[in-house]
Amino acid sequence: MESVEGNERIVIDGVYPEIDDGRFPAKSISGDTVTIEADIFADGHDALSACLLYRKENETIWTEVPMQLLVNDRWRGSFLVSEPGRYLYTLTAWVDSFRTWRQDLKKRIEAKHKDLPMHLAIGVRIIGEAAGRASGADSKALRKWVDILKSERVEQKDKLKLVMSDEVSGLMAKYADRSSAVTYPKKLTISVDREKTRFSAWYEMFPRSCAGKPGRHGTFRDCEDRLPYIAGMGFDVLYFPPIHPIGHTNRKGKNNTVTARDGDPGTPWAIGSEEGGHKSIHPQLGTLEDFKHLVTKAQEYGIEVALDIAFQCSPDHPYVKEHPEWFRWRPDGTVQYAENPPKKYQDIYPLNFETENWRELWEELKNVVFFWAEQGVRIFRVDNPHTKPFHFWEWLIAEVKKDYPEAIFLAEAFTRPKIMYRLAKLGFTQSYTYFTWRNNKQELTEYLTELTQTELRDFFRPNFWPNTPDILHEYLQTGGRPAFMARLVLAATLSASYGIYGPAFELMDNTPREPGSEEYLNSEKYEIKHRDIGRKDSLKDFITHVNNIRRENAALQNDRNLWFNATDNENLICYSKHTDDLASIILVVVNLNPHNTCSGRINVPIKAWGLDLGQPCQAHDLLSNAHYTWHEEWNWMEIDPDICPAYIFRITQNQEKPE
Amino acid sequence: MESVEGNERIVIDGVYPEIDDGRFPAKSISGDTVTIEADIFADGHDALSACLLYRKENETIWTEVPMQLLVNDRWRGSFLVSEPGRYLYTLTAWVDSFRTWRQDLKKRIEAKHKDLPMHLAIGVRIIGEAAGRASGADSKALRKWVDILKSERVEQKDKLKLVMSDEVSGLMAKYADRSSAVTYPKKLTISVDREKTRFSAWYEMFPRSCAGKPGRHGTFRDCEDRLPYIAGMGFDVLYFPPIHPIGHTNRKGKNNTVTARDGDPGTPWAIGSEEGGHKSIHPQLGTLEDFKHLVTKAQEYGIEVALDIAFQCSPDHPYVKEHPEWFRWRPDGTVQYAENPPKKYQDIYPLNFETENWRELWEELKNVVFFWAEQGVRIFRVDNPHTKPFHFWEWLIAEVKKDYPEAIFLAEAFTRPKIMYRLAKLGFTQSYTYFTWRNNKQELTEYLTELTQTELRDFFRPNFWPNTPDILHEYLQTGGRPAFMARLVLAATLSASYGIYGPAFELMDNTPREPGSEEYLNSEKYEIKHRDIGRKDSLKDFITHVNNIRRENAALQNDRNLWFNATDNENLICYSKHTDDLASIILVVVNLNPHNTCSGRINVPIKAWGLDLGQPCQAHDLLSNAHYTWHEEWNWMEIDPDICPAYIFRITQNQEKPE
Repeated sequence: MESVEGNERIVIDGVYPEIDDGRFPAKSISGDTVTIEADIFADGHDALSACLLYRKENETIWTEVPMQLLVNDRWRGSFLVSEPGRYLYTLTAWVDSFRTWRQDLKKRIEAKHKDLPMHLAIGVRIIGEAAGRASGADSKALRKWVDILKSERVEQKDKLKLVMSDEVSGLMAKYADRSSAVTYPKKLTISVDREKTRFSAWYEMFPRSCAGKPGRHGTFRDCEDRLPYIAGMGFDVLYFPPIHPIGHTNRKGKNNTVTARDGDPGTPWAIGSEEGGHKSIHPQLGTLEDFKHLVTKAQEYGIEVALDIAFQCSPDHPYVKEHPEWFRWRPDGTVQYAENPPKKYQDIYPLNFETENWRELWEELKNVVFFWAEQGVRIFRVDNPHTKPFHFWEWLIAEVKKDYPEAIFLAEAFTRPKIMYRLAKLGFTQSYTYFTWRNNKQELTEYLTELTQTELRDFFRPNFWPNTPDILHEYLQTGGRPAFMARLVLAATLSASYGIYGPAFELMDNTPREPGSEEYLNSEKYEIKHRDIGRKDSLKDFITHVNNIRRENAALQNDRNLWFNATDNENLICYSKHTDDLASIILVVVNLNPHNTCSGRINVPIKAWGLDLGQPCQAHDLLSNAHYTWHEEWNWMEIDPDICPAYIFRITQNQEKPE
Repeated sequence: MESVEGNERIVIDGVYPEIDDGRFPAKSISGDTVTIEADIFADGHDALSACLLYRKENETIWTEVPMQLLVNDRWRGSFLVSEPGRYLYTLTAWVDSFRTWRQDLKKRIEAKHKDLPMHLAIGVRIIGEAAGRASGADSKALRKWVDILKSERVEQKDKLKLVMSDEVSGLMAKYADRSSAVTYPKKLTISVDREKTRFSAWYEMFPRSCAGKPGRHGTFRDCEDRLPYIAGMGFDVLYFPPIHPIGHTNRKGKNNTVTARDGDPGTPWAIGSEEGGHKSIHPQLGTLEDFKHLVTKAQEYGIEVALDIAFQCSPDHPYVKEHPEWFRWRPDGTVQYAENPPKKYQDIYPLNFETENWRELWEELKNVVFFWAEQGVRIFRVDNPHTKPFHFWEWLIAEVKKDYPEAIFLAEAFTRPKIMYRLAKLGFTQSYTYFTWRNNKQELTEYLTELTQTELRDFFRPNFWPNTPDILHEYLQTGGRPAFMARLVLAATLSASYGIYGPAFELMDNTPREPGSEEYLNSEKYEIKHRDIGRKDSLKDFITHVNNIRRENAALQNDRNLWFNATDNENLICYSKHTDDLASIILVVVNLNPHNTCSGRINVPIKAWGLDLGQPCQAHDLLSNAHYTWHEEWNWMEIDPDICPAYIFRITQNQEKPE
């Protein structure tokens, strides 16, 4: 009995969000209102009051917000997170003797009980105690009410009117007896990121392939010339594969052959040579000054440069000589190269995180990230984070965010779901997903429902990629232009953050290395490309159009409001997104069959959105600029993929008139 | 970095069962095998090994059980809980260097790699280290294998065969390198109860109404005479409303009238008079010796006597004078009686658990339970536990179970769901439910699915009551004999624990105090009844039949295997239960419409049970003793409620021949 408090009557649990019992922060975006819910109840029938408490992590004063009772003992409160960083929150609740007394008194009055004077005397006691807790004018007001209630000259009906007044309950709430208050034992965390973590369009490009003329190694200067093209399409993140010196030993040749021929540039992920390691720049790309110039220039175009964090070394990396203890040595005196038996990557040495010198290793890798942050880089795409310890990432990201709360880390982990979700929990800002392998209606619906309508949405922020240098999906290999268009629309409208690997995407590269492979033939990973980005059949204009639609329609800048709508054709997928205020409602229909015209009926959830079913809806297809009027929730449509495999309707009611 | 371990790579989470982060124990039954699951994974691709650790709470040595990897990083292990009490469990897992090496070696062999000798050398190192951890014969064996692997005279293929052998992997598992082991930080608890908590049939009866002759106050001796009748129907718990002296002040009269007439016996829940309180017996029932004699006699019939724990007092209870500080005093100098405005219960004073002397109050209430436990009572039905503090019950039940691990507490809380579930979590062995108000197919399906197929089933054990002295549902008021039969079958087959309030139930009392009320007219709560339990139309034989079916069919003794099956008639509800080994399969169909014959097709889940769809099924209706043969999963049936509103089929395949 010693360890319990006999007068502790309140239970607070089922707190939402609370990731893994509060072990990890939930995520939010600066400027958002965070809503917290909890089950709060006590024994018996007394009225409770509850407050949400929050503060920035580095502040000391808690701000209190009253919570509202919803139904079934569920309470809700919310607060604004105004800037990036960490916020703490917790909850407190108490048995509210005044409100209990007042609610019972109301029932007694209705039931015409005779003993109201005695119950008013109980109220006098409760208000008198509040007066003792108050001071100044408040105390004076409370004492005055006590006098009125005690006065024999005041009629009972006036006394009852007084205690039921908002004035009294307002002041009584302010000076409530909180001696029974129970405070939730955990301080939970919300990690707040900047707006770009929710809404961004990425463009991945190999800088070495950007030269104006064929036969030349591209440079950062060439990348600058490419900026108008990229910004013109509407992208706001430009992501480069590693820009560091590339190793010579065991360098891979064209199409990943084991022996490079003379002049083969090697893969940028084989990092490090006598020219330097993770803090150096591959000399053929330019100098650090060139890089910083590019970063600044990109900013002028509204573009942020994102770098690749690939913590692995070529055999020629300076670390191998300077820190042999950071690698795994084999009985034959060689370093263990990267393997996933039977696959071998002889040009890459993994770092041995099980080294006894892990502290030095961690510090050095942190220095790498800080080095690039100091050059102005704030976005990092992290290569294969799932092959390094979880604790390492949790520590590293926290360290970086202390100095750079606006830093963004995108986890490139294509592995088992629980590992991907763990990485997101421990701090990665965004994550690659299985989107690339989710192509039919059922796959897309199930996966997106999991991502956007379960607890995942509180810590896992998807970034959708229809292609990457590693993945050319069969759907793109075989579906022609409509497949590229459909996958672009899906990525760009299902997920507020998405990216493409270009110019392979807009030029619709679709030849695999061999049948059944997801690797590109003559992959840019192993050779320098020179592409005609002005090609007439490029998807550039279509991409520009879609990115403009994303920017102009707030509904597409968030994933939480995604809902799938029924269609009666398995090739037609239909979903909608809307803002809470319904100012922006977008309905997307995509024909997933790139080969055939498909038609069917689509369920338009007019009522579920909160619109008036009795009024017609205006549907404006932003892709074709066609206007429709819908009178019912089921509407027939037909999609010829050779014209355009998708509709992106903006929905309004009584506002927009058809032409 | 100080607080983390760089070499800690493993994550253990998503442990099941784990009630509220381990704050509360999960429940099990002695003799059961408890299955524990968890997500266990690490970075990278290394092989892991995991063990489940368990022990009885009062023991110190953990027993280790290897866990098996299912899919998607989910692991499972199990252990037997052989006796009532508390068991602790936790988990440990490590990166298994031998198994990792062996699984990679296998792939290297298949890929015909040339560097196998070098990899065998790595194996020699791993096995040599294990030899260092082993001792005696094991160490010797391991060293011998090291020698073989090192020997130049042994062919490589024989070396490979050796390291792939079960013998080597067995010994390597025993001496695994656990330096990377991560142990789950929580010790979780399983609270193990005796078999009766899962499977029991309760009979509630007012002892004062048991007199052989009208006009006489029933006694414990009369109750003894009633034992053959109760045992004959198949009940194994006999529950009495409070047996203590009843107060005089403000005693309620017939039908809960405010003023009792002379001779009105008062309600047994108005506990305490000058004749004593919660440790005393109402003199007209007999003596403590009589009570103990009854308890012993009941045991001979296989019946346990359950008492009512109603922690409240009549104004005449000795506590009121001895401990005025345990009550709430009003400004007019009177004690606050029980109220739920506008309702008033002037004959009952609630205890004030907010008293500063709560420690003494708690101790005294504990003494009450111990007093009755010392008289041989092990089952307690607790009246309105939701109006007393949660901490009190958690403490009280734990205290009692320390001395009486076989004690059973049934929570009579008809209140909001989260409060009911909290009471179950904190220690109540069984709980009253909303079953009484779940009458149509959708209500029953949804409620039972929640109870049996969600996490609830790990801590909330339902006990279903078609009627109680407080609740005569409209369905019984209006549905006649078929309604009583249907509700009995539902209670007795949906829930392994159920009870009826008799003889009101078997004699089909169905007149409410007034229209719209769930109170009985001339309720036994306020007067003594004399009933003709031998009445010809009694449901006694039907109840006997149903209870026999429950005893003879193991499927009905558990709730976890409850599945609802589709029917094409909203009045026909169909569900099944089966044992894991399929030795017992029961399919129940009930016509929920007590007024009309209903027919329809029923889905019999032959395939889902694991039976052979190609073979006919034998269905033996245990109520009518009719036999059917089903060749398909959809079968038509018709139910005339005036004959019998239910089928209880025993399902077999290739064993039982139709007559």
